[in-house]
This record gives sequence, C-alpha cells and structure tokens, in this order.
Amino acid sequence: LVKEGPISILGRVCSLLENLIHEGDLSSKKLNGIGIGVPGPVDFSVGSLVSPPIMPGWDRYPIIQTVQQWFPTTNVVVDNDVNVMALGEIYQGAGKGVDNLIYVKIGTGIGAGIICESKIYRGSNGCAGDIGHISVDKNGPLCHCGNKGCLEALAAGPAIALRSLNAAQAGKSPILMKYYETNGNVLRAEDVGNASREGDAVALEVIRESGQFIGDVLAGLVNFYNPGMIVIGGGVSNLGDLLLSSIRQSVLRRSLPLATRDLLIVFSEIGTDAGVIGAINLAMDNIFTLLSNRVEAVAD
Amino acid sequence: LVKEGPISILGRVCSLLENLIHEGDLSSKKLNGIGIGVPGPVDFSVGSLVSPPIMPGWDRYPIIQTVQQWFPTTNVVVDNDVNVMALGEIYQGAGKGVDNLIYVKIGTGIGAGIICESKIYRGSNGCAGDIGHISVDKNGPLCHCGNKGCLEALAAGPAIALRSLNAAQAGKSPILMKYYETNGNVLRAEDVGNASREGDAVALEVIRESGQFIGDVLAGLVNFYNPGMIVIGGGVSNLGDLLLSSIRQSVLRRSLPLATRDLLIVFSEIGTDAGVIGAINLAMDNIFTLLSNRVEAVAD
Repeated sequence: LVKEGPISILGRVCSLLENLIHEGDLSSKKLNGIGIGVPGPVDFSVGSLVSPPIMPGWDRYPIIQTVQQWFPTTNVVVDNDVNVMALGEIYQGAGKGVDNLIYVKIGTGIGAGIICESKIYRGSNGCAGDIGHISVDKNGPLCHCGNKGCLEALAAGPAIALRSLNAAQAGKSPILMKYYETNGNVLRAEDVGNASREGDAVALEVIRESGQFIGDVLAGLVNFYNPGMIVIGGGVSNLGDLLLSSIRQSVLRRSLPLATRDLLIVFSEIGTDAGVIGAINLAMDNIFTLLSNRVEAVAD
Repeated sequence: LVKEGPISILGRVCSLLENLIHEGDLSSKKLNGIGIGVPGPVDFSVGSLVSPPIMPGWDRYPIIQTVQQWFPTTNVVVDNDVNVMALGEIYQGAGKGVDNLIYVKIGTGIGAGIICESKIYRGSNGCAGDIGHISVDKNGPLCHCGNKGCLEALAAGPAIALRSLNAAQAGKSPILMKYYETNGNVLRAEDVGNASREGDAVALEVIRESGQFIGDVLAGLVNFYNPGMIVIGGGVSNLGDLLLSSIRQSVLRRSLPLATRDLLIVFSEIGTDAGVIGAINLAMDNIFTLLSNRVEAVAD
C-alpha cells in the first residue's frame, strides 16, 4: 500500500479523515492536532522519512506540509510507527508508569521503539531501535539486507514460516503440510501458531527456537539499556506463551542479575491500538510543546 | 585496593583530600561539592553501590554519609566510574557537543557509559552500560560470569594477553615469548601492543581479532541506540590504530547505513583525565540541581 507513493496515500488518508469529520458533524477547524506514524526512519525535526527501505518515493517527502494543505489550521507531527506504538504502551498499555521501556514489534520485520525517561528516544539520525539487523548467528541464513544471520532473518514472521515449511516438506509435520495445502501452497506464521496449539512438534520447536533468538538479542540490550520493561507486540506475538517464555528464558540466562531483578517482559495488551493511542498522545504532546514555547515567547 | 573495604578506602581518600586542602591553604568549608566515581552499579538516588561484583563489603554502603562525616558542609554525589568518564568526554573530551554518545572503557573488564540527550543515562537499576557480558560467540571461552563467549572474555586485557600467550607458547612468536620471560613469566596486554609495533604477526592478529569482537557488539548497539559518537578509552586503547580500524570496520559492516552515516568512532584524547573532569562536572551539576530545587521551593 505504501508503495503507491506519498501523494496517493496521503491523499487517501486525508480524505478518509475529512469524511470522518463530516460524519461526526464537526469542523476541521476544531481539529487541533494530527499524529502520524510511518514505517521507516524519520527526521523528527522536519517530519520526513530518511532513506526508508520499504517506501519508494517517500524519501524526504514533506508529509507535514502535504497534510496541512488539507488541514491548514491543524498541527501535524510525524514519527516512526514503532516509536508511536511504544508511546501508546506507556500511556495506556502495559508500560504505564515505566520510565525506561523497549517496545519490540515482531511481524514481517522486527523493530523496537525506545522510551527513555518517559519520552521517545530517537537517536542521532532518527533510526534508533532498528534491532532487526543485529547479528544473532554469523553463519545464519542470508538476510535481505545483505548480511547473514540477522535477527529478522531468523525470527520474524517469514523466517518462522520458512523454517516450518522446510521441516514440513521434509515430511516432519503432516499438520503443517495440511495448512500449507489448504492455503493454496502458502504457509504463514499464524499457521505455525495454530499448529503449535494442536501440539505439533515442529511448530513448537520453531517457536521455541525463535523466542531464543529474540531473547539472545534482547539479553544484550538489557545489559546495555537496563530497561524496566520490555513489551512484545506485532503479529508474531500471537504465537503465544511458548514464544514469551522462551524469550524470557534466554534473557534471564544471558543478562546480568541486577538488570533482570525488576525487569518485566510481557506481551502488549492493547495490540494495534498502541499505534492509535500513541499517535493521539504524540499529537497532544506536540500541541502542548508548541503552546508552552508560545507562552515562553510571550513571557520574554 | 577497593577490596580493603569502604571504611579504609574512604578514610584514605578523605584524608588525602584534607591534606590537599591544607596544602592549598584553603578551608574545607569552601569545598562546595565532591564527585565520586566507583567501579560498580550505583543506585544514584542514594549514592550506594548495588551488588558490585569486584568490591566486597561495599554493597549498599553509605558512601555519601561517610564522606560527609569528614566534610559536613559539602554536597557529595556518587556515580559509576564509567558513567563519570562518559560525562568527562562530553564536557572536555572528543565528545564535546555530542548529544548521544557511548563511552567504552576497555581494560581488565569492559564497560560503557551512556550519554542520552547530553546527560548520563543510568537505566532502571543503575546498571545501564554493562556491555562486557554481551554474547559474542556462544561457543567461546568461559567467562568469570559463568556464561560462554562474553565480550569481556574475548576482548578485555586479560583475554588479549591469554590468547597471545597461548600462541607464543605454541612457538608462534619469539617476540612475545621474550616479553613473557623478561616480565618473569607474565604477559600483559601492553606487551602485545609493543610486540605489534615491532611487527609481530601473532600480536597483530590478536589485536585485529579483538577489535572485530568489540566492533561486532558495538554494531548491535549502534543499530539500537544510533549514537552520534563512540569514544574508546581504558588501557587497551593503547594497543593503537589497528584496534580502532578493526573496530570501525566491524561496525560499518554490520550496522545500518543511516546509523553510521555521521557516526564517529574515536579513541579518547583525554585518557584517565575523563574521570577527573567528569567527577568535577558531576559535582557541579549536582550543586546546580540542589540550588535550583531550593530556588523553586522558595518561589512556591
């Protein structure tokens, strides 16, 4: 969808929003803020994507200015989608009240949103949290980034599906093979989850192994960042408690006792709502920042 | 030295400080602040060490209160030593003006100090930056922490010396063997540095390899944290430019292009002065924080 390019997509988003305002019998002048999350690294100071790998045509595209052509009186703010979800988690999710938190989204890719002292931490180029390409196994499978054994190439949805399919095609899992054939020769990560709930040994092993890879990377990040909580979200979190317990086990084995003493590792309770809640709070934070800057300017 | 326990050590430190004040013909009442760095995880809110691995007797010992028995009118602040050095680097070292920085100290152990938006980041339990036990090679040598293949077990001073000694004793380096015998059957990391400057192939290979291990871990941290600069300090940085170029090469190979575009990886220019400068600035920051809190209390 994002591949249609910014003009088409932002146009569609803005017209959907106009419809919503119309349906609610509201005025767009009462729309004080818009918060937007996009799947790529964002230069937050100008609200543009910088070299996004999966969004051709979006590089440095002026998202804020485009949206403001539709809503000229509205304050618009843009951030990376996983950052926005992390913000949602500390406002209304499992991370309420946690100062330092890592939100990990595991789906087609793997990314993290970092909360530092209750705020989004973006890093020096806006690409902090890009944990999908941290090395897990130097001799592991080739990743689309060109390196070998990246976390994403071992534990994201497609990797989980592929390892399961290989085992199924080697005759090790009639259950997975049935899912594969029923779907029209496609096996998805969610099929692996379903097979595991039916007790399929291959599915259980692939999930356990994937949790271990994720946990190995998180163990290093726990030693470095010493967060109070890690929240796991994204489609792969539907694989269930075996994934979570496997992640926890790896982290506990490799992290330092002091860093794990109070550490909680949990699944997101609010799912994709994290993005919506985060975007609302991003927009509100932005308005309050603008207002307080204006008050200071008046006071001077 | 720290193994003598807190009463003896803090007593010695305070009496040295009293002598200094006396020599300078000053009054201890004019000593507004003392900043202290200690080699272990610190609960910053109370200024005590928490389960320090190499400091028996210091666990939760009231350092601030003890020092204030000698200097009752002075504000005392305690932090982890590597945090303090990181602060020194952004005040007067290579990191001047850098918002997000990782300072890596490589000596007998390996630790990092994290600067986040120009301030020390301590994590939820005060142990952020403990990167010495991040896994590099699951099948690597046993670390004193009980795990295998920790960064410290592969690239700290003792590991560099041990790998070199093994090669020397296998007859691969007469130069290193000479250092070993001259020292009285001891080989130190600095000997490996000296041998490398004489062109010894084993020493060069061990240094290159160690830089690669350090770079592998830093590559992951660069993807996660997206710092503007990494400063390398500690004794092992004396091994020279081969170590640095090997670290850089590994980071560039495994980190994302956007995260390395503006990233600088440099040796500390101020060496051990980083600790002194950092402690001074920690003490000053502490005084200004206390003052501004007092001003706010008066204003209320």
